[in-house]
Amino acid sequence: MDIPQVIQQMARDAKEAARKLGALSRGKKDQVILRVAELLKEQQAHIQEENRQDVAVAKEQNYPAAFIDRLTLSDKVMASMITGLKEVAALPDPVGALTGMWVRPNGLKVGRQRIPLGVIGFIYESRPNVTVDAAALCFKSGNAVILKGGKEALHSNLALAGLMQEALGASGVPPAAVQVIPSVAREATLELLKQDELVDLIIPRGGEGLIRFVAENSRIPVLKHYKGICHIFVDEGADLDLAETVCFNAKVQRPGVCNAMETMLVHEAAAQAFIPRMFKRFREAGVELRGCPRTREIDPETVPAKEDDWGMEFLDLILAVKVVPDLDAALSHIACYGSSHTEAIITRDYDRSQRFLKEVDSSVVLVNASTRFNDGGELGLGAEIGINTSKLHAFGPMGLEELTTTKFIVYGNGQIRT
Amino acid sequence: MDIPQVIQQMARDAKEAARKLGALSRGKKDQVILRVAELLKEQQAHIQEENRQDVAVAKEQNYPAAFIDRLTLSDKVMASMITGLKEVAALPDPVGALTGMWVRPNGLKVGRQRIPLGVIGFIYESRPNVTVDAAALCFKSGNAVILKGGKEALHSNLALAGLMQEALGASGVPPAAVQVIPSVAREATLELLKQDELVDLIIPRGGEGLIRFVAENSRIPVLKHYKGICHIFVDEGADLDLAETVCFNAKVQRPGVCNAMETMLVHEAAAQAFIPRMFKRFREAGVELRGCPRTREIDPETVPAKEDDWGMEFLDLILAVKVVPDLDAALSHIACYGSSHTEAIITRDYDRSQRFLKEVDSSVVLVNASTRFNDGGELGLGAEIGINTSKLHAFGPMGLEELTTTKFIVYGNGQIRT
Repeated sequence: MDIPQVIQQMARDAKEAARKLGALSRGKKDQVILRVAELLKEQQAHIQEENRQDVAVAKEQNYPAAFIDRLTLSDKVMASMITGLKEVAALPDPVGALTGMWVRPNGLKVGRQRIPLGVIGFIYESRPNVTVDAAALCFKSGNAVILKGGKEALHSNLALAGLMQEALGASGVPPAAVQVIPSVAREATLELLKQDELVDLIIPRGGEGLIRFVAENSRIPVLKHYKGICHIFVDEGADLDLAETVCFNAKVQRPGVCNAMETMLVHEAAAQAFIPRMFKRFREAGVELRGCPRTREIDPETVPAKEDDWGMEFLDLILAVKVVPDLDAALSHIACYGSSHTEAIITRDYDRSQRFLKEVDSSVVLVNASTRFNDGGELGLGAEIGINTSKLHAFGPMGLEELTTTKFIVYGNGQIRT
Repeated sequence: MDIPQVIQQMARDAKEAARKLGALSRGKKDQVILRVAELLKEQQAHIQEENRQDVAVAKEQNYPAAFIDRLTLSDKVMASMITGLKEVAALPDPVGALTGMWVRPNGLKVGRQRIPLGVIGFIYESRPNVTVDAAALCFKSGNAVILKGGKEALHSNLALAGLMQEALGASGVPPAAVQVIPSVAREATLELLKQDELVDLIIPRGGEGLIRFVAENSRIPVLKHYKGICHIFVDEGADLDLAETVCFNAKVQRPGVCNAMETMLVHEAAAQAFIPRMFKRFREAGVELRGCPRTREIDPETVPAKEDDWGMEFLDLILAVKVVPDLDAALSHIACYGSSHTEAIITRDYDRSQRFLKEVDSSVVLVNASTRFNDGGELGLGAEIGINTSKLHAFGPMGLEELTTTKFIVYGNGQIRT
């Protein structure tokens, strides 16, 4: 296979398809998405057969059990893909909406209208179900998508792409709207990242290595998510029952995800009353606690935190804890060690709640709620293709609207510039 | 000078300043901007003296007269900088505005709030007045800015930076909010483009060479503007008086700018009546016409258009003209040769006006108005730091709002995820 030629042709086909997609009605798009759901049901045996080839190879190569689990398209995963598609079909279509319209002194009527971005390159790792989820979100928002999944899932991804292209073709939509790159070579990714004349956006999803590789090699804009180093600050005078419930949830409910709490900051006036009860609860759940010297004065069992523990994304049942003298110290700590992802304050104080909301420079800032709510679905975006921790285009979780941009439309009656 | 060290320190100082800027009130920001305007008046002689050094060197090196003109801070240019600052002070402050707020089923109140981007790197060419214009827009939108102007304007730019930092310092705002790189070395630009941990956005403004250099070497997101290859399609049944007025304005009023018309497409049913009168008018204004064979059948004096003339940004009194059989052919021509900048249709037909608005994938699409209106001021954005022809973040002219992003703010009362 001549990889550069294949990728260039895919990009040209995607661009051509994208021109058509922008003008599709919501009805037509939902019809395709629901047809994909039906085909997944009808062709479940075939898809799972293709998937079994990937799984067999991965087992031979002694991939860890958790990896095999993510790679496997079980009946349960197939069912959740189908549910996900139905949910995307039920979401409103962002394309075409006017986000504003105004009249200029010369009578020009100027509006901003949502349009698709065009062609999206989506580069991800193991789970093949992401292939369908991501394709559905890109398609519903009127974009063509070129998918490059993990090398271990190639059979599964190509089978899913074939199924989606069947649904597209049956509805008279260009099948190039959804394409999977038929190669696992890194060269294919590199070639895709060079197509800046044809591809409008790259979204990488996976480990830090993948994301850095994409960011460093792309000529196309990249929306990326490095790390979630999420903080909760327990303020002086906070409701300690509420603080305990929220902090426990943020650390323990699902510790391996980006919006789990990694560092807890405690106001010194609350520390004596809060730390013992909170740590008891954490220890019952198996959380390892690493604290600053003042934390260890209150709870000597705590492991001494090293400098590296501040700003560490543990993704595990480990928590760094620091006692701070006031809100300013908490804000400075977050500014220094945070990752602009998600931070929360637990407080009863009006002024400090407002200062925290204003001064913390993160994609989601919460008062009296768990950091785990940084999620497109939970925040009400309907779905999520990823979380963007850079500030351009869409800061935070990205749903359908964030896969669009706006153009200006102008109604005139002969206006000229003088 | 150790350039990497200087640039890294500037970026750190800018980031530190940006943390403060996000929380500044509009009143404080306007006070600084108006103080800069006062200082420009008070220190006009000093600024012009510094500028004369740059101009003297440029003259010695035999730069063209137009270049010298752009480099010179005449009394008139100084006055327009002052007027520009007053206009920016009068604009609303986008920071802090909620673009929406909604309540989730669990009672969480979720809002999206405008915040500054953070630190902006602005890289530009000759005109030193741009230093003040760009700094004012970045500052008003709460961003710190690092400016890298053309090497020929270094004295002028450093003098202007000194003046702006004086105004900042006098108001208790960190002077690092506005910094000019004190080096003309390309190494300085390259080092700035590496500061992806500290700088949030790069805006290059200048010739295509500069912009490609920045885009290819930046690890930071770049909002850029390559070319404006603007089309007007004169439809069957168009009001030919209106068509003539608008096309003349789009080509002739200021041919050297990005929103001037470069190609005129004429419906074959309108060509016989429209081309002779329009060409007469164009020729009186000195416009060179390059046409397709069908154009030349109607007007044999027309120069034959070469393939290169389609999609050419002439930036001059030259126009490519093509007769097309219908709207679809016009749309295909624009999709093939356009630059996603600005296109207009002149029509009386409702359906075709709607199709054109919907199907043309450009940052500004107009009906019955001149392409020259693609401008932040003209469209009602108040001011403009540039026009973005990539679709990410802000497609088209960028004003103050486009120099911000949004974060999610969440008001809870103990919500956790289950």
